[in-house]
Amino acid sequence: MRRRYELDLELVGIATARAAWLSSDGQSVPSLLAQLHRRRAFHELDSVRPGWDSARTIAAVEADVLVEATPTNFQDGEPAASLLRLALARGWSAAAASKGALVQHYAELRDLARDSGGHLRFGAATAAALPTVDLARYCLAGASITRVEGILNGTTNFILTMMADHGVSFAAALQQAQARGIAESDPTLDIDGWDTAGKLVLIANAVWDAGLRLDQVSVRGIRQVTAAEIRHAAGYRRVLKLIGSLWWEGDQLRASVELRSLSAEHPLAHVNGAEKGTVFFTDTMDRVAVLGGVSDPVGAAAALLRDVIHLAKEA
Amino acid sequence: MRRRYELDLELVGIATARAAWLSSDGQSVPSLLAQLHRRRAFHELDSVRPGWDSARTIAAVEADVLVEATPTNFQDGEPAASLLRLALARGWSAAAASKGALVQHYAELRDLARDSGGHLRFGAATAAALPTVDLARYCLAGASITRVEGILNGTTNFILTMMADHGVSFAAALQQAQARGIAESDPTLDIDGWDTAGKLVLIANAVWDAGLRLDQVSVRGIRQVTAAEIRHAAGYRRVLKLIGSLWWEGDQLRASVELRSLSAEHPLAHVNGAEKGTVFFTDTMDRVAVLGGVSDPVGAAAALLRDVIHLAKEA
Repeated sequence: MRRRYELDLELVGIATARAAWLSSDGQSVPSLLAQLHRRRAFHELDSVRPGWDSARTIAAVEADVLVEATPTNFQDGEPAASLLRLALARGWSAAAASKGALVQHYAELRDLARDSGGHLRFGAATAAALPTVDLARYCLAGASITRVEGILNGTTNFILTMMADHGVSFAAALQQAQARGIAESDPTLDIDGWDTAGKLVLIANAVWDAGLRLDQVSVRGIRQVTAAEIRHAAGYRRVLKLIGSLWWEGDQLRASVELRSLSAEHPLAHVNGAEKGTVFFTDTMDRVAVLGGVSDPVGAAAALLRDVIHLAKEA
Repeated sequence: MRRRYELDLELVGIATARAAWLSSDGQSVPSLLAQLHRRRAFHELDSVRPGWDSARTIAAVEADVLVEATPTNFQDGEPAASLLRLALARGWSAAAASKGALVQHYAELRDLARDSGGHLRFGAATAAALPTVDLARYCLAGASITRVEGILNGTTNFILTMMADHGVSFAAALQQAQARGIAESDPTLDIDGWDTAGKLVLIANAVWDAGLRLDQVSVRGIRQVTAAEIRHAAGYRRVLKLIGSLWWEGDQLRASVELRSLSAEHPLAHVNGAEKGTVFFTDTMDRVAVLGGVSDPVGAAAALLRDVIHLAKEA
């Protein structure tokens, strides 16, 4: 970080819902990692403060950036919303990995960051290591993005790929995805399209500051898809993919999540398994597609680190 | 530009090898454009100074950024090298669209920019509207790029796609490319692989500051490829593509341009016609592929505008 980015990053605290580690307590990061590698629970480690939750920790430490990595909650965005508010109110910047707070409270959090001098980044929440909002805002700067299409959810894409490649039913493919740890035990958010819809809301807000709400996205998942439909599409050399789309009708932004039948010429037609991809259609740069980026915890951590680097450069 | 990027861009001069327009002469940009739309030659326009070449213009005007758009010359990098030196020495930044100066004199120009406080950008030279160096440096920040593979030349990809889709010979496909204005009348730099090799040198310098030289790239073009070879590959469900590669062997950077046979799983296997694509292999984000981006003059201009926006933000 020092050599490549001229950054001196220091980890000053780590907090969960039930314990916190503070660098000021004197236990070094290598010692902390050594204990974690011995598979001890975080809240039972030496020199970790039991009972200190994330909010208390944010209030107590001096820092510049909050790295938020709590579970996504589309209902009220908690606990991320409260934690982001606390950090931004302290004048910190924040890198968010969960989607709920940004889907429910984007405008409020954006304004809070602006008023207190911090910055808010959520590349990790949008598609983890696959660069989506960064690509749109930075690499396509100067062009107008007119339409976005994405395979934004690896679980559903894995299921559809299994069904296409092996002719199995939706239920059997879902079971495979769960057995491999790709789908969660409650896969509702993924297979009913809400994870994709949430990511569309984040992209719409990042690209156009559009104030899109989750209830404005037309959402259809993949629960009803049959092996026969997929075979039928393949007979016409087409593939069925769960596509999240954003497009403009006049000055009205439209958003949908639905199964679409793609020809082999579509840049998303060959995104298979748990991979993801996004295509940006622009006025002056034609279409630019970005594919890949691993969805595992290392990829998510790498995306958060990327956001921290950019936050530090912006500060 | 004002609303989206808080930038107040002003065009202060335009120069060719034989004439210059200066905003200080009083002729407005709309009036200039109106004359150009009537297909008058630039050096014959009203209020354009005949005999003022680019070097004289750079010396005479006050500006912050040079937008360089001269023909690529791999021999000595001229005239771009001299013009970039002049602008950087004045403390300006520069956005370059041609490759020769950057391939031949990258380290010198980088140091000159650093010493005089300017910045040098060459996204437009690398793959025009396809984000390549921007993606690597910004969207993959924090990850280590271990390997790069790209279809970096639209002309050769168009020829190979024509041969694969229609079973025609190399000569016939080249003729088609020339008839459609995709290949130049002297297509040597493209079909012998040197355009791709030059772009590899730019990427290597942008990603790793590697000091790679053009004579260190192992280059084989597509002049010898036959329809039979392409058919043979197709029989194994593979496609032949001209791939530029950069990879590390220990601490030694390797670079090659050669025909490679790709399976359908490779993200570049479906990049057809005059489209381009690049795949970055990383340590923490897996592989990230970016495809598309139009190669026409509008796309090149959009890429230059993107670089100007970033230069203005960095200043």
